[in-house]
Amino acid sequence: MEQLDTLMGKYGDEGDKLLFKIINSGDFLKDADAGLLSDKNSNAVLRQVSEKGLRYDLTVPFARVVSMNQHQFSFPFKRYQIQAVWRADRPQRGRYREFYQCDADVVGSGSLVFEAELMEMYDRVFKILRIPVKIQLNHRAILESFAMHLQRPDLFIPITTALDKLDKTSTDEVAQDLEKVGLTTSEASWILAQIQNKKLDDFHFHENSTKGVKDLQTVFDLLRHSGLNNEVIFEPTLARGLSYYTGCIFEVLPVGIKMGSLGGGGRYDNLTGAFGLPGMSGVGISFGADRIYDVMEELQLWPEHLAQSVQALIMPLDSSTIEYAFSIAGLLRSNGIPTDLYPEAHKLKKQFAHAESIGARFAIILGENEKNNQQVSLKNQKTGEQHIIAKSDLVTFMLHQK
Amino acid sequence: MEQLDTLMGKYGDEGDKLLFKIINSGDFLKDADAGLLSDKNSNAVLRQVSEKGLRYDLTVPFARVVSMNQHQFSFPFKRYQIQAVWRADRPQRGRYREFYQCDADVVGSGSLVFEAELMEMYDRVFKILRIPVKIQLNHRAILESFAMHLQRPDLFIPITTALDKLDKTSTDEVAQDLEKVGLTTSEASWILAQIQNKKLDDFHFHENSTKGVKDLQTVFDLLRHSGLNNEVIFEPTLARGLSYYTGCIFEVLPVGIKMGSLGGGGRYDNLTGAFGLPGMSGVGISFGADRIYDVMEELQLWPEHLAQSVQALIMPLDSSTIEYAFSIAGLLRSNGIPTDLYPEAHKLKKQFAHAESIGARFAIILGENEKNNQQVSLKNQKTGEQHIIAKSDLVTFMLHQK
Repeated sequence: MEQLDTLMGKYGDEGDKLLFKIINSGDFLKDADAGLLSDKNSNAVLRQVSEKGLRYDLTVPFARVVSMNQHQFSFPFKRYQIQAVWRADRPQRGRYREFYQCDADVVGSGSLVFEAELMEMYDRVFKILRIPVKIQLNHRAILESFAMHLQRPDLFIPITTALDKLDKTSTDEVAQDLEKVGLTTSEASWILAQIQNKKLDDFHFHENSTKGVKDLQTVFDLLRHSGLNNEVIFEPTLARGLSYYTGCIFEVLPVGIKMGSLGGGGRYDNLTGAFGLPGMSGVGISFGADRIYDVMEELQLWPEHLAQSVQALIMPLDSSTIEYAFSIAGLLRSNGIPTDLYPEAHKLKKQFAHAESIGARFAIILGENEKNNQQVSLKNQKTGEQHIIAKSDLVTFMLHQK
Repeated sequence: MEQLDTLMGKYGDEGDKLLFKIINSGDFLKDADAGLLSDKNSNAVLRQVSEKGLRYDLTVPFARVVSMNQHQFSFPFKRYQIQAVWRADRPQRGRYREFYQCDADVVGSGSLVFEAELMEMYDRVFKILRIPVKIQLNHRAILESFAMHLQRPDLFIPITTALDKLDKTSTDEVAQDLEKVGLTTSEASWILAQIQNKKLDDFHFHENSTKGVKDLQTVFDLLRHSGLNNEVIFEPTLARGLSYYTGCIFEVLPVGIKMGSLGGGGRYDNLTGAFGLPGMSGVGISFGADRIYDVMEELQLWPEHLAQSVQALIMPLDSSTIEYAFSIAGLLRSNGIPTDLYPEAHKLKKQFAHAESIGARFAIILGENEKNNQQVSLKNQKTGEQHIIAKSDLVTFMLHQK
């Protein structure tokens, strides 16, 4: 939760609409303007009945924290943050109203070393998760230069918006869009020829694009010293909303599965300026945890050991052995062996069905005999093998089952 | 975020007030009643402009999920959940508007084995965190029996509310409170004598209290089979709001520090009933993560290794060694050694100050010489010792520094 003042105006008009706003506590209508209420003027009443909103992303709240605590930090300052964010959007595949972002940012340095470090982080994380990805890079200066080169700086945003659709629509339609916003046919063709090339060296068509090329080249040069596992490529149409990125722009796309980006980010030079701390450059990336989860589900990438979290289910045969069963469960747990205890002396059939459903590897059956002899009957659920083991040997036995 | 229908009416009138409500998106006043708006009737307008609210706890949302997915679960079903919850309360020490709860619940069994397991969990977690605590148990049947024994069942809630104040106020004041709600002096004295005794065996004064005593006795008997580290005691005044607990009630208090409860919970027999699934018994506990954090700060209980998360800071002496520095950082990181890289060839004094502030154990200094010889200069920040080490030996050297 943040003050609405912190959030409003940071994500564009569309973002302002997608913010979830919280009604002031108590008699919230008391100070609202009677005229606006009777006009049912929702827009004007909104700020009179709401002072707080839910985080839309983690970057703006982070910028606020940095601005408020600048004297406590040593720069360059790095932080990661994993938290829920909310957007009042229409839910659909890969798009949720409440979802988790995992952010990593570095503020207080303009060095491109951090761009390279963050791309390394993307590469390593997706390698560990076993999700094949394509990491795309672009630079705001390159996006801006199309309009500059054509001496139509006013068309920067419409041109970028048209190009951003290239992954969803055809080149012809984008060409039409570019003409609709005011370019000639040959100007539109030049842009489309330029972006289909994708060779960084061919983007020196303007002094501003040259700045972008140099930055990206530095990042790619550094990344040559990394043992990258995934493709990291220049994508001159990548825009990512443009709201606050001023330098490099990043995006991660899964390969071989239909799903939007699994992450994105970029450099922002002016973000803390809105909170009274100008000149603080930062760069950050975000992982979309829910989409990553969805992809891992769809590609069945979860490690097997996660499905088998319980090593043993303890099964009391009658109510007089429940205390003994409880002591065996405690013994195993205090030795780090994940153990569950069936709490009642139900029929063994029912208890075995539960062992199956929780994925327990061993069933440990305890009747009067076992209790009196301080033993357990242990059954391997996969092989069906059964052993009688002394309580004093049980921990050692279990720890050797890998 | 939940539907307000799910949340309202589950936490009492006070709870309803403390729920954060979210304004409907878009033209939220459109369908609001014009008359109520012009009357500024906040209470009546509220539900016309808000359909969603923020989680007040994790138990009610869990009950909703269990009710909606009952056919997918094998019972007894266990789950843990760590998430933020919100209360529109006045912030103060140990009380936040947005805070994290860590819940563990078991549903689908009435067995008291789970009460004992959850008390074991409290005991072990606080042992690991090194926070000394007192774990208190009570039972709703015992609380109810004071009023029953005095044949004033209508006074159950006022009596409980008066007793719940005993940890903050004097016995005399509680006695006065009890008389104010309608008890005679001797009735009030009887209750106070009873609760000051705290011997479970002396609470058989009513058939209902005997049920509570038996339940608690079973839990204490099971816990005798655990190697408990903290005191687990019967506290006959413990009430914890009473909203939905129907059996055992738990609370964890820190010992030796002024702070409210660090956790609480109990058994609820009727919770999923509100969502169309009657007869599902459950028991759960909650840890208050923020208060636990505050206590650990105050008692300085954080393990030392958390303060020293960075093992080495790589320091480039001039801009030509930055790529070499980047490759050394990648080498150490890919071998699991937490490493930071100073991104620019600033003066060494500045770089050493940064190493100090991030708590780096080693400074790794890289100039032209080191680069040309594929070596590093490594300085132990504590001892001041300095070594020249071949790049090929660096990982082995670092991994042996414990």
